Amino acid sequence: MIDATITGEALIAGQAVKGTGAVLRAWDPAAGKQLDAEFFAVDHSQIDAACRAAEAAFDTFRATSDAQRAVFLETVGEQILALGDTLVERVMAETGLPRARVEGERGRTVGQLKLFASLLREGSWNDVRIDAALPDRVPPRPDLRLRMIGLGPVAVFAASNFPLAFSVAGGDTASAFAAGCPVVLRAHFAHPGTSELVGRAVARAVELCGLPGGVFSLLTGAGNAIGQELVRHPAIKAVGFTGSRAGGMALMAVAAARPVPIPVYAEMSSINPVFLLPAALDKRAEDIAAGFAASLTLGVGQMCTNPGLVLALAGPDLDRFTGAAAQALAGTAAAVTMLSPGIAGNFQRGVAQLREQPNVATVSLAPQEEGKGAPALFVTTGAAFLAQHALGEEIFGPASLVVACRDVAELLQVAEQLEGQLTATLQLDDADLEVARTLLPVLERKVGRILANGFPTGVEVASAMVHGGPFPATSDGRSTSVGTGAIVRFLRPVSYQNLPQALLPEVLRDSAPEGWRRRDGELTRH
Amino acid sequence: MIDATITGEALIAGQAVKGTGAVLRAWDPAAGKQLDAEFFAVDHSQIDAACRAAEAAFDTFRATSDAQRAVFLETVGEQILALGDTLVERVMAETGLPRARVEGERGRTVGQLKLFASLLREGSWNDVRIDAALPDRVPPRPDLRLRMIGLGPVAVFAASNFPLAFSVAGGDTASAFAAGCPVVLRAHFAHPGTSELVGRAVARAVELCGLPGGVFSLLTGAGNAIGQELVRHPAIKAVGFTGSRAGGMALMAVAAARPVPIPVYAEMSSINPVFLLPAALDKRAEDIAAGFAASLTLGVGQMCTNPGLVLALAGPDLDRFTGAAAQALAGTAAAVTMLSPGIAGNFQRGVAQLREQPNVATVSLAPQEEGKGAPALFVTTGAAFLAQHALGEEIFGPASLVVACRDVAELLQVAEQLEGQLTATLQLDDADLEVARTLLPVLERKVGRILANGFPTGVEVASAMVHGGPFPATSDGRSTSVGTGAIVRFLRPVSYQNLPQALLPEVLRDSAPEGWRRRDGELTRH
Repeated sequence: MIDATITGEALIAGQAVKGTGAVLRAWDPAAGKQLDAEFFAVDHSQIDAACRAAEAAFDTFRATSDAQRAVFLETVGEQILALGDTLVERVMAETGLPRARVEGERGRTVGQLKLFASLLREGSWNDVRIDAALPDRVPPRPDLRLRMIGLGPVAVFAASNFPLAFSVAGGDTASAFAAGCPVVLRAHFAHPGTSELVGRAVARAVELCGLPGGVFSLLTGAGNAIGQELVRHPAIKAVGFTGSRAGGMALMAVAAARPVPIPVYAEMSSINPVFLLPAALDKRAEDIAAGFAASLTLGVGQMCTNPGLVLALAGPDLDRFTGAAAQALAGTAAAVTMLSPGIAGNFQRGVAQLREQPNVATVSLAPQEEGKGAPALFVTTGAAFLAQHALGEEIFGPASLVVACRDVAELLQVAEQLEGQLTATLQLDDADLEVARTLLPVLERKVGRILANGFPTGVEVASAMVHGGPFPATSDGRSTSVGTGAIVRFLRPVSYQNLPQALLPEVLRDSAPEGWRRRDGELTRH
Repeated sequence: MIDATITGEALIAGQAVKGTGAVLRAWDPAAGKQLDAEFFAVDHSQIDAACRAAEAAFDTFRATSDAQRAVFLETVGEQILALGDTLVERVMAETGLPRARVEGERGRTVGQLKLFASLLREGSWNDVRIDAALPDRVPPRPDLRLRMIGLGPVAVFAASNFPLAFSVAGGDTASAFAAGCPVVLRAHFAHPGTSELVGRAVARAVELCGLPGGVFSLLTGAGNAIGQELVRHPAIKAVGFTGSRAGGMALMAVAAARPVPIPVYAEMSSINPVFLLPAALDKRAEDIAAGFAASLTLGVGQMCTNPGLVLALAGPDLDRFTGAAAQALAGTAAAVTMLSPGIAGNFQRGVAQLREQPNVATVSLAPQEEGKGAPALFVTTGAAFLAQHALGEEIFGPASLVVACRDVAELLQVAEQLEGQLTATLQLDDADLEVARTLLPVLERKVGRILANGFPTGVEVASAMVHGGPFPATSDGRSTSVGTGAIVRFLRPVSYQNLPQALLPEVLRDSAPEGWRRRDGELTRH
């Protein structure tokens, strides 16, 4: 058993340090009471120390072998598991999430670390390219060899809705570590004790693996100033963020205004349209409604991929769907504790505002309670959705809007007007293939993941996952924040021309062990 | 023979259209006279028409097969060659570049188009990933398949210094086309006739291949307003630019301020440090000086990779180098016509300013003439370089500054203070390996390409090339603008979950022809 006391300290390059700023206490949203330990906001010199330590650690960290970093990632996972029930109970207390969800998310987090370890062992992430010298060509072609290296220290902002999988040792941290980038982690104020426990697990893994302490730091405290100062720091070379659109855009502005601008990977907002195509709706309106209600209320709707928009043709089949959905939601309609009073307040305000919009009718709306969220379902017309921009705004929580379109042309028009999204879902039958074919090119331009006959919640951590999508779903639709593809966000290519073997990085030498290389443009194992 | 008359028209989605704005005439910098044809600035509605046509063409263009786009790229090359000597002579007249260089650059341009065609035929750019469904897992894993698609219409800004290879049908256009992205090309005012000729060749290829006209448009006229309006247009999804730091940063600001921000790939400025390590300098000071002088004066120094900075330890060996370099430059020191009077003026101003900086001594400086550039070589100390920021600024043309460092520690300090660069060069001998090893990690963080015992000019178009590097060498150091890696700039991933085979893009179907796939994370041909 390892020591798992929560002291309220920040972790600066392996050292526990008390912040000097305003105090922050954790809140138990279910019990409605403050939790133990006082967390203090880190100050300017502490932020600076974390960033400088990360900068100093970068060359050493990125010089480790893929195998060494794989072991490090696995050790982080082991140290998280070693926290045992202390961690699970603290997460439950700080988030109101049930035990099964927290244990599941812990499994996902550890699995994610292992997946990046296997990515490192597989090795093709290095993108080794070798163009052999052609000394007899006129002019002669030099020997050219390319590999990817890390961008440098990454500022990671933890999300509130996944206190383990998108937080201190979540996907952003795992992919940055895999890329050889030190991480300065901005802890989320809503689960500071969870953050400290996991942060200490990461710091222990750094120590156990003999890495420099600067590979990881954890910044404590409330308020936006800490994060903004972090993003402005010259040592920081990229930013990973999951949170609100306003928060992400504020960081994008800070990053773009730096003397040396840096990339920001912000996963921000999505309403995840679900298209109910005519034949599927005819055949399975009630089944789809049941699945939809389950997806909408999963985790009290506090999912980036929550189905916040349903699109279909107006008519009796859609009425069957909304009727069945209302019934299903009524069956689960008790208000449930949300992650924080702030999130619950925003949700309830969003629902109230949507309800007051013209041309919006209420399908199902259970009574809300303080600090909780109860599902809400509304319906509008395609014409209203096209005319009223506010109807397309995200409400974070279990709320959704059904858009009843006049015909397929209007459905396409609504699709074409959508902002960038993480996902789009098609409920379809064989007879819907033609409509689906006209929709697909539009959806490909708008979203990161297209699903058929499922629901968007449940984001598989896998090689072929895209948890991303065009702005404003993310700040940078060229990448994913879930799955092994996430590593490319923190990499850049370096080319070596005519370097002596002794100076080449090992993976580019003639003597490198067997692995994937692109030789004169062709992929090969040798 | 094809018709190769220059009319001064813009090309909007395959239609030749006269701009309505201010007139622009081409200038022959060698003869010092205006050239035929009046080019008019396109207006708001013409820019809008080009962007809307590109948007309308996108889905059709990206739905073409890899093989079809390969043929299209090759057809562009054939149509450029079909312009014959008309093109070569117009380039020479508009740029003052000699015939051999122009013909060589034409070969490079056509070769580049062919290289991207071979990239498409090889197919692994699609990054196909397939994670098989695991129906028995708890919870079941869905079938997930990923491929890359184009970002959408790309605004490409032609460069002045490579009127073919970095202009209308240059690397940015070739890689955008390869990615399935239509291109709206902002022609460079310094070679408008060349641009029209090549633009017509591209438009003919579009027509011959049966593609929609919106796949390519060419915008004519002088001034920055056209480009800024282009980057602001909502249909544009990415920007490729090669030019000045001020120009690139202006476009970055416009792109970041859009309601929907878009990526900008600007290749901007670099002084390409050349490190002369002690043993190499001892053994080969004179040889290195000869190679350096040739690289510095190649193309009148109008190369992004021109060696504008030389770093070495102060002492008699460095004196031998500067002496020999001065002698070599004196041998070639006649002033040579530069690409435009503006470029020559900026070069001469830059040289005059550097000469007046404190702690800078002149090694070699031939008399300058109007519209021409003569090589200039200066020397300063490491301490001065560290203290005077202006000494690190790019002078576009055949000028370079030698920094004589006190010791290796100061050399490292200077390296650490450098801004991002396209290249760094090491002149080294076996006895220099240890110093080189301490320099390498610093250089990897600073530059896109590291060379040994060569010179940075001469950028191979190849799979393992990186013509990129951290800011301000480029706006986005995660990519390259030369070589096949350039395609990733215009791609994003899309994931398909449980889609019926009939709806999947062909490359993701079970029936797809043999090709590279990543199955459950492992690369395989099947």
